[in-house]
Amino acid sequence: MRIARFATAGKDAAHGTIELASDGGDNPDSIAVLDGDPFAGGAVHAAGERHRLHDVRLLAPVIPRSKIVGVGRNFADHAAEMGHEVPVGAPLLFFKPNTSIVGLGEPIIVPAGVEHLHFEGELAIVIGRRCKDVPADQVSEVIFGYTIANDVTQRDWQSSDGQWARAKGSDTFCPLGPFIATDLTIVEASRLSIRTRVNGDLRQDGNTSQMVRGISELVSFISSFTTLLPGDLILTGTPKGVGNIGDGDVVEIEIDGLGTLSNPVLASTRGPSS
Amino acid sequence: MRIARFATAGKDAAHGTIELASDGGDNPDSIAVLDGDPFAGGAVHAAGERHRLHDVRLLAPVIPRSKIVGVGRNFADHAAEMGHEVPVGAPLLFFKPNTSIVGLGEPIIVPAGVEHLHFEGELAIVIGRRCKDVPADQVSEVIFGYTIANDVTQRDWQSSDGQWARAKGSDTFCPLGPFIATDLTIVEASRLSIRTRVNGDLRQDGNTSQMVRGISELVSFISSFTTLLPGDLILTGTPKGVGNIGDGDVVEIEIDGLGTLSNPVLASTRGPSS
Repeated sequence: MRIARFATAGKDAAHGTIELASDGGDNPDSIAVLDGDPFAGGAVHAAGERHRLHDVRLLAPVIPRSKIVGVGRNFADHAAEMGHEVPVGAPLLFFKPNTSIVGLGEPIIVPAGVEHLHFEGELAIVIGRRCKDVPADQVSEVIFGYTIANDVTQRDWQSSDGQWARAKGSDTFCPLGPFIATDLTIVEASRLSIRTRVNGDLRQDGNTSQMVRGISELVSFISSFTTLLPGDLILTGTPKGVGNIGDGDVVEIEIDGLGTLSNPVLASTRGPSS
Repeated sequence: MRIARFATAGKDAAHGTIELASDGGDNPDSIAVLDGDPFAGGAVHAAGERHRLHDVRLLAPVIPRSKIVGVGRNFADHAAEMGHEVPVGAPLLFFKPNTSIVGLGEPIIVPAGVEHLHFEGELAIVIGRRCKDVPADQVSEVIFGYTIANDVTQRDWQSSDGQWARAKGSDTFCPLGPFIATDLTIVEASRLSIRTRVNGDLRQDGNTSQMVRGISELVSFISSFTTLLPGDLILTGTPKGVGNIGDGDVVEIEIDGLGTLSNPVLASTRGPSS
């Protein structure tokens, strides 16, 4: 299934499943409404409630109630382009706050007075069950699905601040979506092409098979020190090809089977902060 | 007011206000139940519902739905004891996940196979209003109150991992409580003594007046890049005197007017992770 979250005029946000006409069904591109929170178990289709896909606005498919864990330098060719080695001990992990999330089509805001804002196209793992100390060979049991994330990063702050809270955690620095695919196995999710385009130009052309630490190792390691909750996200790292984005650009990240996450980039309307 | 969250046998967790006999009222040490979520506006006392304080179990007074922001090296004497300078540009900021929080009396778990787990007694700011870009002279309007936090840190991971997600974000690494004091002004909160004892021995004896970046500057700066939500926490840094804790120790952090946050330390019952 493709789980999305969406808004319609005058109603609260809801979850639904996306059905495409190209899937061979009788319906045009549509979204079937789910009753309940799919991350809290047991959401079912609301009888008969369905919208044309173009009548709704897709939102970020999940806002975690706990955490987003990012993985740094998890593609050797990206680590190299940044002048780094891949980590030899523990994976390089950081947190992004849930307030950094925006959905499909929402703008990435360039903070006032900064340059060197970079896109990073990534596969995001969505956790489905509360879990701790998950053995690598049982990771599939705790994964809800996969979606696309843009781990937007401000390079100057990343260099100057030491810790990456501001560089990677600022508002709008985590575009997410357009939907969560729940049917992929870990093996399937580990051989997906990731392509990022800026204004239509191909900038990243990688594959999840290039990850230094794979999906099972990442989830197992992260759950060794922190309890994962349903809806938590793990951003698995970006392939080579990152680069600057600025006012007026459009970033599109496409992953096989996960659709395309597209976001415009806008300059902040505020003056530079001190 | 002193806002606490508590559990009683067979009931959901609730918030309440603590009233001490020493305050001069008619009641023995007691907790008056609040209806609703004080972080979502408009909690009121439930008519007549009151418990003896010793009949309830206090929980961490808030579990943020968004984030905990930590501030590193915000006391010059602590930075010096760790061999660091205080940051000269932006404050040194990091995130801890809400899954790291434990309440009064709950154990800090020493991860299997590690030493050099340190306590860090700190004043925690509790945010009361959704806010962004808060000017320093308006910070008092967005503060809900203050409580005590222990920014537990594993020093080896802090050195080896680069980013501090595991070193500061592991389960049980954020003891919090015992309650939130809502009546302090920023000026008052900026001259509180912080004392940490391990097994009764005084180990930290600092004062919030020694913070390099004060409360107003921290909230203003942090809100310049990330939207703060009600219940979000800012841990303002620790004075000198940090040190090892291990199985069987008891850490008590006392801040003027905020009570004492006491937690035992327990070794993990799991074998060492790889």
